[in-house]
Amino acid sequence: MKLPVNLADKFKLFDEYWTPKIVGELNDQYIKLAKLKGEFVWHSHDHEDELFYIVKGQLKLKFRGNKEVILKEGEMHIVPAGVEHFPVAEQECWVMLMEPKSTLHTGSTKAEGSVAVDDQEWI
Amino acid sequence: MKLPVNLADKFKLFDEYWTPKIVGELNDQYIKLAKLKGEFVWHSHDHEDELFYIVKGQLKLKFRGNKEVILKEGEMHIVPAGVEHFPVAEQECWVMLMEPKSTLHTGSTKAEGSVAVDDQEWI
Repeated sequence: MKLPVNLADKFKLFDEYWTPKIVGELNDQYIKLAKLKGEFVWHSHDHEDELFYIVKGQLKLKFRGNKEVILKEGEMHIVPAGVEHFPVAEQECWVMLMEPKSTLHTGSTKAEGSVAVDDQEWI
Repeated sequence: MKLPVNLADKFKLFDEYWTPKIVGELNDQYIKLAKLKGEFVWHSHDHEDELFYIVKGQLKLKFRGNKEVILKEGEMHIVPAGVEHFPVAEQECWVMLMEPKSTLHTGSTKAEGSVAVDDQEWI
């Protein structure tokens, strides 16, 4: 039987930004942890909704049309499939993500630093 | 555009134990919040994995064969489909759950206090 996953302990295992690590799977979804700092890229996932839950820090999600949400520790937001978003973390931010196993890191956008599905790492 | 969901604020909206409230949906999964205290019932979900993430307090999950895991704040555990489990919260415990929209509260067990899928409430 698997042991519980302690998020704080898992976050100690890596330092890189924008490289989600897989910590669990259920119902064809992955639970991932990521450290974010700075700006990412505009992207969307054509068929997959994506959940952001803030474990530490603060994350801004920009959307087209000058819209944005600010997510603080203990807050979550679901970005629906097809909605372009641009994450910005002014300070280091720790997030838990949930998305289908098939989800590409940067969706349909090819970007430096994007991670192919098969390269995503379990920790 | 929806506002972020602040878990602490959502937990202020209800006091009942063992009655999960829906706070989000993505990819045919629901994100639910529940307050737990005392013992629930032995049950399993035939086809659905279920994630428990502890927002506050501590939860024991007992399994058949005298196995158990203790989940503390900031820890998560995924109970695979078909695995019987028996949740026990000696003190009040706040959890975030993730499971398919189709999941019945007590799985294939009929229990007093079990909630039909259609009766589950958004908050």
